[in-house]
Amino acid sequence: MKRAEDLAGILAAVQADMRAHLGHGKVADYIPALARVDPMRFGMAVMTVDGDSAAVGEADAPFSIQSVSKVFTLTMALEKVGGDLWRRVGREPSGSRFNSMVRLEQEHGVPRNPLINAGAMVVCDVLLGQDRPPAAIGRITDFLRALTGEDGVHVDMEVAQSEADTGFRNASLANFLKASDNLSGRVEDVLDVYFHQCALAMSCRQLARAGLYLANHGADPLTGTRVTTAVRARRINAIMMTCGHYDASGEFAFRVGLPGKSGVGGGILAIAPRRGAAAVWSPGLNAAGTSQVGALALERFATLAGWSVF
Amino acid sequence: MKRAEDLAGILAAVQADMRAHLGHGKVADYIPALARVDPMRFGMAVMTVDGDSAAVGEADAPFSIQSVSKVFTLTMALEKVGGDLWRRVGREPSGSRFNSMVRLEQEHGVPRNPLINAGAMVVCDVLLGQDRPPAAIGRITDFLRALTGEDGVHVDMEVAQSEADTGFRNASLANFLKASDNLSGRVEDVLDVYFHQCALAMSCRQLARAGLYLANHGADPLTGTRVTTAVRARRINAIMMTCGHYDASGEFAFRVGLPGKSGVGGGILAIAPRRGAAAVWSPGLNAAGTSQVGALALERFATLAGWSVF
Amino acid sequence: MKRAEDLAGILAAVQADMRAHLGHGKVADYIPALARVDPMRFGMAVMTVDGDSAAVGEADAPFSIQSVSKVFTLTMALEKVGGDLWRRVGREPSGSRFNSMVRLEQEHGVPRNPLINAGAMVVCDVLLGQDRPPAAIGRITDFLRALTGEDGVHVDMEVAQSEADTGFRNASLANFLKASDNLSGRVEDVLDVYFHQCALAMSCRQLARAGLYLANHGADPLTGTRVTTAVRARRINAIMMTCGHYDASGEFAFRVGLPGKSGVGGGILAIAPRRGAAAVWSPGLNAAGTSQVGALALERFATLAGWSVF
Amino acid sequence: MKRAEDLAGILAAVQADMRAHLGHGKVADYIPALARVDPMRFGMAVMTVDGDSAAVGEADAPFSIQSVSKVFTLTMALEKVGGDLWRRVGREPSGSRFNSMVRLEQEHGVPRNPLINAGAMVVCDVLLGQDRPPAAIGRITDFLRALTGEDGVHVDMEVAQSEADTGFRNASLANFLKASDNLSGRVEDVLDVYFHQCALAMSCRQLARAGLYLANHGADPLTGTRVTTAVRARRINAIMMTCGHYDASGEFAFRVGLPGKSGVGGGILAIAPRRGAAAVWSPGLNAAGTSQVGALALERFATLAGWSVF
Repeated sequence: MKRAEDLAGILAAVQADMRAHLGHGKVADYIPALARVDPMRFGMAVMTVDGDSAAVGEADAPFSIQSVSKVFTLTMALEKVGGDLWRRVGREPSGSRFNSMVRLEQEHGVPRNPLINAGAMVVCDVLLGQDRPPAAIGRITDFLRALTGEDGVHVDMEVAQSEADTGFRNASLANFLKASDNLSGRVEDVLDVYFHQCALAMSCRQLARAGLYLANHGADPLTGTRVTTAVRARRINAIMMTCGHYDASGEFAFRVGLPGKSGVGGGILAIAPRRGAAAVWSPGLNAAGTSQVGALALERFATLAGWSVF
Repeated sequence: MKRAEDLAGILAAVQADMRAHLGHGKVADYIPALARVDPMRFGMAVMTVDGDSAAVGEADAPFSIQSVSKVFTLTMALEKVGGDLWRRVGREPSGSRFNSMVRLEQEHGVPRNPLINAGAMVVCDVLLGQDRPPAAIGRITDFLRALTGEDGVHVDMEVAQSEADTGFRNASLANFLKASDNLSGRVEDVLDVYFHQCALAMSCRQLARAGLYLANHGADPLTGTRVTTAVRARRINAIMMTCGHYDASGEFAFRVGLPGKSGVGGGILAIAPRRGAAAVWSPGLNAAGTSQVGALALERFATLAGWSVF
Repeated sequence: MKRAEDLAGILAAVQADMRAHLGHGKVADYIPALARVDPMRFGMAVMTVDGDSAAVGEADAPFSIQSVSKVFTLTMALEKVGGDLWRRVGREPSGSRFNSMVRLEQEHGVPRNPLINAGAMVVCDVLLGQDRPPAAIGRITDFLRALTGEDGVHVDMEVAQSEADTGFRNASLANFLKASDNLSGRVEDVLDVYFHQCALAMSCRQLARAGLYLANHGADPLTGTRVTTAVRARRINAIMMTCGHYDASGEFAFRVGLPGKSGVGGGILAIAPRRGAAAVWSPGLNAAGTSQVGALALERFATLAGWSVF
Repeated sequence: MKRAEDLAGILAAVQADMRAHLGHGKVADYIPALARVDPMRFGMAVMTVDGDSAAVGEADAPFSIQSVSKVFTLTMALEKVGGDLWRRVGREPSGSRFNSMVRLEQEHGVPRNPLINAGAMVVCDVLLGQDRPPAAIGRITDFLRALTGEDGVHVDMEVAQSEADTGFRNASLANFLKASDNLSGRVEDVLDVYFHQCALAMSCRQLARAGLYLANHGADPLTGTRVTTAVRARRINAIMMTCGHYDASGEFAFRVGLPGKSGVGGGILAIAPRRGAAAVWSPGLNAAGTSQVGALALERFATLAGWSVF
């Protein structure tokens, strides 16, 4: 287990290594709020199950966590309906883009896993239940506030609105799920929850803190609060490992060797079981929609810290 | 060229042959208005470019023409924008179901042809232009009233509403087209036009009459009114031949040998270039969504009349 | 019906029109014997069911007919096993490249139609039966000699050998068919027949002559010999219309409006039912593997002669 | 770290748990030598990096390791050509069957990863180099003899011959690779190596022993011999985690939580990094071609031993 001073040294080394890479990749440009983010920004935070932590760069700057949120809503859905979730969504890597229709059609409306968009919409439908969207969105926000212990976690309403205004591909997926009898809520309600969830704004430090239960058998190591069962935490980690980065999940496992989840806002959360959680943010994306500098930083970090599970 | 008395004899023979088959196939059940239609119903009408005609069964009963309408909106769109249409939609058989997403995604939002649902939506978008949906729907209805010379042609509003209420798969396609920058109108407006077009109610006699220009180089043979150019009429026929029945287009060409277009309401319009037009209606569908008895009746008719183009 | 003098005039006009296009397209280069053919070459021949004929350019130059041969082996197979053939091969357009594996796998080893490579291999397997390849190859050659009345029709052995040496994609298809229990012969024997069939050398005049039975209800109009039944001739024409040019079959129907079959040697055979047959040769291919100038020449011809079926 | 006595107890418990499941699944029946294996057979062996070991059931019975061999040939190929291998094969889960053509065609002959059949053939091609097949087969056998320290490891020639006689699907893949310029050797030579590799016969004890270097940073923990670099060992483990069980890799990660590789002979090798290796054998396969009882036994074992990486 690394101590705080070791972690700080490692993060400093990672940050130094990243300098030559800053600005690489392409900032998501499908909505203005993401497009205008400076590609040179970089932050990283690590927290261990022992309570040690370290951070570099803009570790406290809030950014749009986008699909990283899928890890948390998956946890919530498993707590709510347990293994019944797996009747409606698979847990295999899709080998396809995050928003691909092809597999969804071939597999009759059962998304391959809960970390691709269609799968996350089924999760939203579970969380929505018989409620109106604001209630479900409130529960998601509350869950993340509880995990981080910080009230600052919030939905960026400009981002949520932009997602809704431009999210035709996601609307296509949601309508397809509905046509396949895999949504019980109204299409627009499920999308409403989904777009708000993606618009959550958090910092690297908050994200690493929030994910810590996944590194500690499902219980928050600092407060002792059980978030999910040990088995579920293990399984969520497994899904992050095989499916966390869409059609580049194999590459992330190959290079970083940690369960992780990326978002097009440039954030990545990585879990080192029994050790800790790391979150990184840098807005330039690679072709697969994962933060290019972020993935590289986690690769360096995992190597220096010896945190790869392999 | 067959005279009226010959045609009447042939149609009587066809009707007799069909008796053993009535009720075969499965009535479309995705909306109540279609599901409650009696599968034993049958009507057929033929009209020649010389003005002869014949009819059997319920040739005057209005039914939901559904996708048969795509032939007429395609004609309207070609008159409106000419060959520019082909920048937005192809003219190859899709080899897929009428509402498949797979090819649409593989081909980046350019539908394979204007007779599958996605292609017909692009056609709707062309017809919509800068207008509100009612204006476009009105133009389509007017076009068919002019072709048939009958004011009775109308949109069945119950069907249109049901299509809208349950058309999630079509909403998925329309959103995908929008996401691919292949719709200029609003998704809901394009769907509005599309659902109304599919809900047009016409009889076999009206349908055969309406399609006669396609058998006569683009001009109505009875009034002399030019509907479209000779080249376009030929090309619309070609598209009906290769794409008129989704993934069973080859089978229809193989068995019937005429350009045709089927609808899930159980209607089929077939064109015999330089000879005439035939329309048949029987609600039971085969696995590909084409009227089973209708296709058989057209096969018998084409054989007896010697009207196959092959 | 066009007389010989009309046909000659039309062909002369077509030839004149083609001058500006000669050399367009890309000569097949996967084997040396095809790659070294001069892209400027052009020939065309037309023959009517009345016995009139006309020709321009190098109408007597033998070229590698390649996939055009599939029309003739399909005829032979239907004569041999009748409708049983359709248990092993479909009759729908594939919407895919001539040598695509994708659909073959999705449809469990049943090729979409007999005019794509995999379908033609199933046809070869039928023609092979319990024999050794030379016997089947001999029967195919004899069939074409009988149709043309010319002993000059032969297999170009250099081409056949080159096809065998480089035909890994075809070997992949044949092995897949075998793995799907859709070949009864040995893989190497079926490929042997297939490669020889593709290597048949014929001239435009011979090809048009050979195809004349398809324009005349299955009987040779000049000798009266019945080659196949009227129904089968009609159905072969239908398959040529919907499937004769792979994923550009719709385009050929749209532009030319005749059943046709192209080969990568640059030849195309087109049938005008009840009128005649036309063959054209020009080695430059379009992206779909069809002779670019050849297709254009047939489009011009069909327009001038009024031979489009639509 | 578990001691030998603990391991023995855990394995005994696993064996007891498996009793109710023995015979479940379906024995591979595509070749006689596999089809005749008794589905009730079961063996399991575990070995730690400390040299402790335990075994239950038929842990010393040799069985056909089939695709488990791909882990070892991948190691050999990486040692031979290093990262150049990744120009010819990917490292992403395929989401498809072990022998699927679809993705191979879509990705232009570059197999998704080295653990599906097509990828393993590219690996064979690397190992073959300019040699004749027996030399390459000899090197593979020698490699496994060296890893196990046992001369008994051998190719079952009856199995190898049967694979060759019936391997049309594999021949289809190999020919496709050749057509895509992704094989430098002759198709039949690459298949020869591949079929022999799959026919290797080993026991659970030998397999666990052979895989131990992957649990120990690339070096054999008992002899100190370095087999591959630490980075490569980590990456091979990552590939086993995301791709080791074809389209059921996610499920194995979800349930077992260890890098693993299964074979249709009923064997599975699982690696617990820094802990040890486990091998299990039971011939009944689930729908994805993985030993049903074997996967269950590893799930139980990983839980009891606390060896999941998650």
